[in-house]
Amino acid sequence: MAKVLVIGAGGVGSVAVHKMAMNSDIFPGIALASRTKSKCDAIAASVKERTGVTIDTYQIDADDVAATTALINEVKPVLVVNLALPYQDLNIMDACLAAGVNYMDTANYEPIDEAKFEYSWQWAYQDKFKQAGLMALLGSGFDPGVTSVFATWLKKHKLDTIRTLDILDCNGGDHGQHFATNFNPEINIREVTAPARHYLNGEWVETPALTIRQQFDFEEVGPKNMYLMYHEELESLAHHLPEIERIRFWMTFGDAYITHLTVLQNVGMTRIDPVIYEGKEIIPLQFLKAVLPEPASLGPTTKGKTNIGDIATGLKDGEEKTFYIYNICDHEDAYRETGNQAVSYTTGVPAMIGAAMMVQGVWSGAGVFNMEQFDPDPYMDMLNKHGLPWQVKELAGPLAF
Amino acid sequence: MAKVLVIGAGGVGSVAVHKMAMNSDIFPGIALASRTKSKCDAIAASVKERTGVTIDTYQIDADDVAATTALINEVKPVLVVNLALPYQDLNIMDACLAAGVNYMDTANYEPIDEAKFEYSWQWAYQDKFKQAGLMALLGSGFDPGVTSVFATWLKKHKLDTIRTLDILDCNGGDHGQHFATNFNPEINIREVTAPARHYLNGEWVETPALTIRQQFDFEEVGPKNMYLMYHEELESLAHHLPEIERIRFWMTFGDAYITHLTVLQNVGMTRIDPVIYEGKEIIPLQFLKAVLPEPASLGPTTKGKTNIGDIATGLKDGEEKTFYIYNICDHEDAYRETGNQAVSYTTGVPAMIGAAMMVQGVWSGAGVFNMEQFDPDPYMDMLNKHGLPWQVKELAGPLAF
Repeated sequence: MAKVLVIGAGGVGSVAVHKMAMNSDIFPGIALASRTKSKCDAIAASVKERTGVTIDTYQIDADDVAATTALINEVKPVLVVNLALPYQDLNIMDACLAAGVNYMDTANYEPIDEAKFEYSWQWAYQDKFKQAGLMALLGSGFDPGVTSVFATWLKKHKLDTIRTLDILDCNGGDHGQHFATNFNPEINIREVTAPARHYLNGEWVETPALTIRQQFDFEEVGPKNMYLMYHEELESLAHHLPEIERIRFWMTFGDAYITHLTVLQNVGMTRIDPVIYEGKEIIPLQFLKAVLPEPASLGPTTKGKTNIGDIATGLKDGEEKTFYIYNICDHEDAYRETGNQAVSYTTGVPAMIGAAMMVQGVWSGAGVFNMEQFDPDPYMDMLNKHGLPWQVKELAGPLAF
Repeated sequence: MAKVLVIGAGGVGSVAVHKMAMNSDIFPGIALASRTKSKCDAIAASVKERTGVTIDTYQIDADDVAATTALINEVKPVLVVNLALPYQDLNIMDACLAAGVNYMDTANYEPIDEAKFEYSWQWAYQDKFKQAGLMALLGSGFDPGVTSVFATWLKKHKLDTIRTLDILDCNGGDHGQHFATNFNPEINIREVTAPARHYLNGEWVETPALTIRQQFDFEEVGPKNMYLMYHEELESLAHHLPEIERIRFWMTFGDAYITHLTVLQNVGMTRIDPVIYEGKEIIPLQFLKAVLPEPASLGPTTKGKTNIGDIATGLKDGEEKTFYIYNICDHEDAYRETGNQAVSYTTGVPAMIGAAMMVQGVWSGAGVFNMEQFDPDPYMDMLNKHGLPWQVKELAGPLAF
C-alpha cells in the first residue's frame, strides 16, 4: 500500500491530510507526525469524522535526523510530505536520503537565524537525490507552487515567451482581530519584514520592505493596496524561465496590518536575534508568536476571499498579449470543508496535488525539482477538481505600473 | 553621622544620590543599594567625579525582607529612601519596621500581578509605624509629590478653599527613538494602559484608558494633546483635601506614542498575566521592557522640556479665583548636571528634598504620611534652590473643559 508520511500538523498539514483522505484512491495510507502528537490526533479525529478514513499519528522532532530516519523506516512511506517549519527542510531531506524515500515540501529552506530566502541550500542536494535515484519536489503550495504552474501553463498554452510576470497575492479575508497573521506569525513576519527584491534584466533589485505600493482591483475582493515583496518562486522562475525580463511579487496588506507591523518592528519585537531575558536568550519574534492569536484559531471567524494569480505579458505569434490567471478561494467554504481557512486551504490543497503527482508517477525523475520543470496540465486539472478552480482571461495590455 | 540608605539604582536613584552628594551638609553619609551592584558602582563613580563625594554601594534583593533588614542593620541609616520598584514598597517598609528606621518612597505600592494603584496597602501600615515611633513619608517625587505640595501651598497662600484641581504633566522632550518610555517601561505602560479615573463630588468616575483628550498650550513647550489618566495622588488629595469637588490628572502623549501603545495593547504585548513560552511563564510586558530602550540610554539624546503643574480653582475672600503653579525643567540641563534626563531629574530632586525634610526634622511625626499633611513652605523653598524652580500665575478663569 503506497503510504505517505506528512510531517507538520499546522493548518496546511491539516488541509493536506483532509484532502488526501478525500482521495483515498490516490492515498490509500496516510501517516501524520508532528512535534506535538496531540495536534496530529486532533486532525486525525476531524479526518475520521469528515471522511471516515483512519490515519496513523506519530510524535517526531523533525530537527532530529536520526529520529526522523527511524520514523520513516518504521512507517515505510513512498513519499515524505514536509509541511513543518522551513528551518527543518534540510534535516528532513537528509532523513529521506538516509531512509531512501522521496521528498516534497511547500516552502524553501531558510536558516533560523537570518531571514535569507534562497534555494541554494536545497539545490545543493541535486546530486545526492540523483545518485540515490530519489525525487525531491520543492515548493508545492500556492505561492510558491501554483503560481509557478500557472506561469508554465501560460507559456505552454497562451504565450510563446513571457517577457514580464507579476504574481499578485491578495487575502481579502477579515478575521475580526486587531492583528493576526494567517499562517505561522514567525514565518509570515520574517517574510514581510525582509527587504523587497524583484528580478529585472538578469539582476536582483532590492528595495526596503513595504515601500513600493500599488492599488489593484481584485475580482470578488475589490480594490486593495498591495506591496512589492520578495518571494521564493521569483528565484526558481528566473532560473527556469530565463527569457523573462522582469518578475515581481505583490502581496496585499491593509493599513492596520502595516501600522501594527511597523510598530512591532520599531520596538524590536520582530527581531530574530536573541535578547537576554532573565538570563535566557529569547528571540523577540518567537515570543511575539506566543502572544499573537494561533492562526488556526482564526478559522471559525474569517470571512471573505483570497485571490492569487499571475499576470504575464509576452509574445504569441509575434504579437504582445497579456493574460491574467488566478484562483479565488472563499474562507468560509474552506473552513466548512476542512476546518481551516483559505490561507491554509490554498497551500494544503496544492500540497496534496503535488503529492498526488509524485505517488501516481505523473511527475517523476531523480534529483531536486522545482514546479516549473514539469508538465502543468495534470496539476491544473486537479486544481479544478479539488477545490481551487482557476480562471484565465486576456487583459487589454500589460500592467500600468 | 546621619546616614541615608537609598535603594534603587535607576535614573531616579541616580539623580537623588547626585543631589544628596551636592548637599553633604544635609546628607553627610550616603549608601546606595540595588539588585545589581554594578549599577550602584557606576552611579558612585559619577557622583565622585561630579562632586568629590564617596558613597557606599551594596547589593540587595529588596524582595527579601530579612536580607534588607540585615543590610539596614549593617549600614545603620537614619532613613531608608526607597527608589526601587513599586512592587517592593511593602517589603521595604517591613524591613524598616524590623530595623527601626524611617522610610520614604516616591510611588505607591502596587501588586505585581494587577495594575491596581491605591494607598490602601501602605495606609494599612499606619498603626505599625505609629507604635514603633517611626515615620513613613509616601510619594515624594514630582507626581505624586510636588504636585501635592503645590496644592497645599496654593491652599495656604492663594485660596481659602480649592473647588477643582487639575494636575497637568507635560513631557515635551524628544528622545529621537520610535518608541521609548521615559522611566521604567513596565511601570509606565501599566499606568498608561490602566482605565482613567477622576474624582467628582465624592465619587470616582472611571473612563477607558486614553479616550478623553484635551489640547493645552504649555509654556516653553507649546500646544500638546493631553489625556485624562488615573494617578495615585488623586486618592491622597481627595482624602486630605476633602472639600475638593473635582480632581483630575492629565498627561501629554504624542500621536506616535499613542499609536505604538495601541498596537502593543492590541497584540497583547502589554499584558501582565503570564503566557507560556517554551514551557516557562513569561509576562509579555516584562519581556517588552527587555526589548525597549533602557530609559537611562535616552539621557544623552533627549532634548526639550517638561512642564508639570497644578491648576486650582477656588474661593479667596469669597471670590472665585484660578491659579496655575508649575515647574519647567530642561532635559539637556538635567543631563548635564546629573547624567539623567528631566523625567528622572524631576522625580529624583523631590526625593532628595523629601529626605532632607525628614533627616533635618523639618517634617516629622510617627505614622504613615502623605505629602499634603505637612507645611509646604520649606519644601517649596528647596525646590527653588535645588533645580526645580516654580512659578505661579493667576488665570482669567477656570479651565474651559
